[in-house]
Amino acid sequence: MRRMSFVIVAMCTAAVFLNSHAGSATGIPADSTEREIRAALEEQAASWNRGDVEGFMQKYWKSEKLSFVGSGGVTRGWQTVLERYKRTYPGPAAMGKLTFSELEITPLAKDAALVLGRWQLERAADRPGGVFTLVLRRFPAGWRIIHDHTSSVAPPAKTN
Amino acid sequence: MRRMSFVIVAMCTAAVFLNSHAGSATGIPADSTEREIRAALEEQAASWNRGDVEGFMQKYWKSEKLSFVGSGGVTRGWQTVLERYKRTYPGPAAMGKLTFSELEITPLAKDAALVLGRWQLERAADRPGGVFTLVLRRFPAGWRIIHDHTSSVAPPAKTN
Repeated sequence: MRRMSFVIVAMCTAAVFLNSHAGSATGIPADSTEREIRAALEEQAASWNRGDVEGFMQKYWKSEKLSFVGSGGVTRGWQTVLERYKRTYPGPAAMGKLTFSELEITPLAKDAALVLGRWQLERAADRPGGVFTLVLRRFPAGWRIIHDHTSSVAPPAKTN
Repeated sequence: MRRMSFVIVAMCTAAVFLNSHAGSATGIPADSTEREIRAALEEQAASWNRGDVEGFMQKYWKSEKLSFVGSGGVTRGWQTVLERYKRTYPGPAAMGKLTFSELEITPLAKDAALVLGRWQLERAADRPGGVFTLVLRRFPAGWRIIHDHTSSVAPPAKTN
């Protein structure tokens, strides 16, 4: 009976150990990548919801190589993406309240990850929303979006 | 004069060496990644242009984790993506002639890359096209698309 207890304890310990090291086979620390990217995107949405477009833009790679795909096609470069956001969302009413949801974070390397998620704006007049694909890289200053492909998707038709 | 020739030859040798090793600082063999991915996408378009949707699908990761974002939102899993393509493009007239262009391939790791590009269909009735973001991983069998985000973009209005 005592030996059986030992086996069970050993198996549980092994299970906990293996679980906490998930992803280490590929050398990718999945847990911290996911936590850090979630935090970065939460911070980004919080900036938006304070009406702070420049703060929102801090999570984008400050480079001319930053690429952004929206409904109008490709926009290139941090400054041009900032100007596009300012033009498309000229004030608090247009910006509304932003929520990101259903984030799926796939680590690709120690310093690269793919994120699939949904965005939703709550505004007085409407509730636009859709799906985005982000590719992020980890820089010394933290994770930054190097590519953003954002689509609008019409909400599903109500069935009741 | 002889010394000058030596300097020129040495500089040329250094330039050729540096160029052939571009990307090696990050351990990412940029040249072969780009060549292999271009070849995979050319093969994919060739399958499409033979009316071979199953062949086209061979470059997608055969997994339930494959994700595809189109105009209707997110589709998941290789089989479901195949069925979506068959439904959206039910025959040669709907499939038309596919061209990929303006491919920008960004290696993210030895086995991961981001691709931004344009797609265009030539059909009897219309010329739909747009922009896509792909994330590919290198598997033992070769590069496979693990995530595809494809958007339609209206062609720029003619100014003349």
